[in-house]
Amino acid sequence: MKNNIVDLQEKLSDMLNAQQDNFLQGKVADYIPALAKVSPNLAGIAVATIDGGVVGAGDYQRPFSIQSISKVPGLVMAMNRIGDSLWQRVNMEPSGQPFNSIIQLEWEKGIPRNPVINAGALLVADVLTSHFSASKLAFLSFMRTLAGDESIYIDQSVYQSELSHGSRNAALAYLMKSFGNIESEITDVLSHYFTQCSVAMNCQQLAQSLLFLANKGVDPRTNNVICSPKDTHRVNAILSTSGMYDQSGEFAFSVGLPAKSGVGGGLIAVVPNYGVICSWSPPLNKFGNSVVGVNLVSAIAQELGLSIYH
Amino acid sequence: MKNNIVDLQEKLSDMLNAQQDNFLQGKVADYIPALAKVSPNLAGIAVATIDGGVVGAGDYQRPFSIQSISKVPGLVMAMNRIGDSLWQRVNMEPSGQPFNSIIQLEWEKGIPRNPVINAGALLVADVLTSHFSASKLAFLSFMRTLAGDESIYIDQSVYQSELSHGSRNAALAYLMKSFGNIESEITDVLSHYFTQCSVAMNCQQLAQSLLFLANKGVDPRTNNVICSPKDTHRVNAILSTSGMYDQSGEFAFSVGLPAKSGVGGGLIAVVPNYGVICSWSPPLNKFGNSVVGVNLVSAIAQELGLSIYH
Amino acid sequence: MKNNIVDLQEKLSDMLNAQQDNFLQGKVADYIPALAKVSPNLAGIAVATIDGGVVGAGDYQRPFSIQSISKVPGLVMAMNRIGDSLWQRVNMEPSGQPFNSIIQLEWEKGIPRNPVINAGALLVADVLTSHFSASKLAFLSFMRTLAGDESIYIDQSVYQSELSHGSRNAALAYLMKSFGNIESEITDVLSHYFTQCSVAMNCQQLAQSLLFLANKGVDPRTNNVICSPKDTHRVNAILSTSGMYDQSGEFAFSVGLPAKSGVGGGLIAVVPNYGVICSWSPPLNKFGNSVVGVNLVSAIAQELGLSIYH
Amino acid sequence: MKNNIVDLQEKLSDMLNAQQDNFLQGKVADYIPALAKVSPNLAGIAVATIDGGVVGAGDYQRPFSIQSISKVPGLVMAMNRIGDSLWQRVNMEPSGQPFNSIIQLEWEKGIPRNPVINAGALLVADVLTSHFSASKLAFLSFMRTLAGDESIYIDQSVYQSELSHGSRNAALAYLMKSFGNIESEITDVLSHYFTQCSVAMNCQQLAQSLLFLANKGVDPRTNNVICSPKDTHRVNAILSTSGMYDQSGEFAFSVGLPAKSGVGGGLIAVVPNYGVICSWSPPLNKFGNSVVGVNLVSAIAQELGLSIYH
Repeated sequence: MKNNIVDLQEKLSDMLNAQQDNFLQGKVADYIPALAKVSPNLAGIAVATIDGGVVGAGDYQRPFSIQSISKVPGLVMAMNRIGDSLWQRVNMEPSGQPFNSIIQLEWEKGIPRNPVINAGALLVADVLTSHFSASKLAFLSFMRTLAGDESIYIDQSVYQSELSHGSRNAALAYLMKSFGNIESEITDVLSHYFTQCSVAMNCQQLAQSLLFLANKGVDPRTNNVICSPKDTHRVNAILSTSGMYDQSGEFAFSVGLPAKSGVGGGLIAVVPNYGVICSWSPPLNKFGNSVVGVNLVSAIAQELGLSIYH
Repeated sequence: MKNNIVDLQEKLSDMLNAQQDNFLQGKVADYIPALAKVSPNLAGIAVATIDGGVVGAGDYQRPFSIQSISKVPGLVMAMNRIGDSLWQRVNMEPSGQPFNSIIQLEWEKGIPRNPVINAGALLVADVLTSHFSASKLAFLSFMRTLAGDESIYIDQSVYQSELSHGSRNAALAYLMKSFGNIESEITDVLSHYFTQCSVAMNCQQLAQSLLFLANKGVDPRTNNVICSPKDTHRVNAILSTSGMYDQSGEFAFSVGLPAKSGVGGGLIAVVPNYGVICSWSPPLNKFGNSVVGVNLVSAIAQELGLSIYH
Repeated sequence: MKNNIVDLQEKLSDMLNAQQDNFLQGKVADYIPALAKVSPNLAGIAVATIDGGVVGAGDYQRPFSIQSISKVPGLVMAMNRIGDSLWQRVNMEPSGQPFNSIIQLEWEKGIPRNPVINAGALLVADVLTSHFSASKLAFLSFMRTLAGDESIYIDQSVYQSELSHGSRNAALAYLMKSFGNIESEITDVLSHYFTQCSVAMNCQQLAQSLLFLANKGVDPRTNNVICSPKDTHRVNAILSTSGMYDQSGEFAFSVGLPAKSGVGGGLIAVVPNYGVICSWSPPLNKFGNSVVGVNLVSAIAQELGLSIYH
Repeated sequence: MKNNIVDLQEKLSDMLNAQQDNFLQGKVADYIPALAKVSPNLAGIAVATIDGGVVGAGDYQRPFSIQSISKVPGLVMAMNRIGDSLWQRVNMEPSGQPFNSIIQLEWEKGIPRNPVINAGALLVADVLTSHFSASKLAFLSFMRTLAGDESIYIDQSVYQSELSHGSRNAALAYLMKSFGNIESEITDVLSHYFTQCSVAMNCQQLAQSLLFLANKGVDPRTNNVICSPKDTHRVNAILSTSGMYDQSGEFAFSVGLPAKSGVGGGLIAVVPNYGVICSWSPPLNKFGNSVVGVNLVSAIAQELGLSIYH
């Protein structure tokens, strides 16, 4: 059932149309001007499969700010670079903390609960900053290689906007530093982190870039080993328990796929041995996840029976 | 690969023998005398498959106190009884709170994070107490039916021991009541809850009893529908994000199966479309999970490639 | 300046009249029906001095439910009974926790922050229950002796109302019990505590009863030693840092007297070496303190220059 | 009784000698090298009275790093500069949070609990930085004027040491900034704050400098109004409920004076209408207060009957 991508194209359009009344249920991220000005009515959906298929609907070829989705390739880079020693500096447990991550970080003495909450991603950014001579370029290069597209770029207006509204992330980074868990200069860590977040990509590019997560670490288009099967497993596990902020449990409960969202409205979901789904629609629910995105991925997972918990 | 249970029998014995140096790494639960007196050197492992196979090694036919594993069938009974209204009284998010669930319960105004932490299981016990005329008998009867064994019993010494050391659970229940989220008398709720926990079963019985979770809700031995496919999915999702206390993320990361442990040393893991693994060994790690049990389930999952995140 | 109580009588009436527009700023406690039905327009004020004077205005001779003001004489009884060993079971630090005491109690492993938050008063109630053969009678008798009035009584409707809405206090008590910090049966502890809270007294009686706190432990009317100078000091210190719930700091900041309020609308303030002020007016501010009461005590303290921080 | 400072001189020496076995009970602050290298055996004590007397014993004329004692004059400067608007940005409640102030700061949305915890003092530093063209010079000048000694200086080695270990304070400042409660650049705020902390003064200077707090705001040596009677009252109230970190309640309970300690080992206590006590001894107890200092101030308060709670 999973492999008949032939008529999925048409279904995607129908699913997208079915969402048109739901855009108003969310709210576009407005903590930085550069995100706030994105139109709330845009939406795209793409599915890429490990056998080479790719289909899409709506604005699936329009670039958006990948934001926290960048935590996934960032994590892969860090695991590749420093191996298991990473897990002495960041945990892999769900956070269970709505909106309050600095409390938990204090509680757990500067060890972030997992690498896909902000504190954890800043820790990963510190690893990359410390272990690459030019970590921002390295990250961009990694994304271009994954996407097979050298035109992928950093949205400078988003980057500048993030930088000038980065106090909370600075607080997290300094708190980790006070516990001895940050090696680089905070300004460098933040600069790397905001660079990651400011990468602009579209649904198709993201879906195809992350196919290795559905294929035991191997990019099926190039046969390049992006990461080990073991680390692929780990990333999918973390995305399953923690990828959707404080809605992770509900997403597992109702959809059942490893996934990661970003406040730019993007959402990627990995279907092991099948492919990757990527949706984009800016209005967010109270958890910071795209309203229409969650609905679309849920609809596709149900239609094709993709859940890993069945 | 999954289906060749033929030579698994021998492997189970080998795996069990390989654990003999690890018993000392854990500590038998000692918060109640009835559990503290169980020998730390006992260990059993059983695997039951949906096609009818069952193999075991060690003390896999010796009954033990199922403790928190009872939260799984308890949840199934409550979902069957009151449907989706259950989810207005209990959430489905990972808790992220080591040892401190009462803090979170206060924080979230009497709504437990999920049904497999203590607060959530007490909420489920309240549902059962309120909606069955004789909920303790109903639970025992449900377990006997699932196991196909009318001899399954309540260990009265464990039950009495729990009752006389139940202050923390009483505090959780009263706190929920203060928020209006408990309907029955607290003494009845606690009595039901401790009864559930005090059921004695062995590894083989538990593995076979829970096969419906690996089979979309249908008991493969009787073809009885135990719960809907949707609710089966939900249970497996909750066990994946929250079943192993504050080690749930690490268990997903390194093993990758929906699972639930109990402080009696039992541990069940569901392999969708394949079967159920049940281990038992009393010494617990700092998270309250069986040391040898986690190792055994991990070894089997790896040997047979059972993870859902690959 | 302090000792001219002669013309204070008239000033009290003026001060009370000046409050008439402020009754609406508060809200009568409604967590139990017996308190909710008290008229919000009642108000009384009394000042008793250690040289034997007593003046009052408004409803200062009308009994009300003393509620948490009972924590003061309860504490004195417990200090007298078990001495310094009390301070191994309860701390003397401000709590700094708005509305969330169960979180702090968990955090600090069952040791209440101080004896005038609910958890601490329940601990004191446990001490009294454990060390008096009839602690409720003993408390009532203590209050009658202090007031020199054998007609002081328990308001049974308040007591019953408290009992049937006592879940949160039960949760606190069970949590302390789970840490081994409660000796008696929880039902007995709660019964004693609610009995204390349900004592009915008027402003004049309360002001006169607590004169020993302004007089180094000696009741100036009888010359009876109620408690040691050292313990008197301690009580006043605790009331100064913690007596007004999460408004204690602000009350010190703006008024500057050891004080204790109750949700029945009562408020007592100790003026060392001078006397005791007691006000009563049911509408409470968001901290649970009487709106008009805080204003009245503040006005008197300012008028007479009573603050201890000058 | 209070005013006979004649024979206090001899008593101070005796009291100091009586402490010689207690130095080992504490631990010199070691979070920065510049403090860690101070000898643990130094100790001084001075008492200055509003009628012009001053006595001292031990190392009472040897300068030390005033550290958090600087929060008191800093607060006075801010109150003088911006008036009551200060209290919209910082609260005046005891914190009740051992070691965990960032948790509370998050909880209360960037409003520090009071101006003498670190977060609150950083807020005050922001006020000074924003409202003085050269706030560091202004602070130093204020201290020199109060002490009547132009030789008071900033210990540059302490300042540099603080700067290079300032991550936790940076985290607090950035967290407040993320809630919109910091106006100046964080680096300026930290620089001001660490400058304040690095002022070196001796016991006699500190005791004399703060006499205005015991004299309704007027410096008794110059008759200069340092702050209003109302603000003097407020400072003393805050020091009474919150000046001794998480030992504030116990200090009130056993000593009974408005006080402030610093991790350099200094401790000042205000005796309204009498004078100021200042002790210095570097080894700290687990709360961060000087072991010998608390003992000395306690002994003097008891000897002279100085407590405000009697």
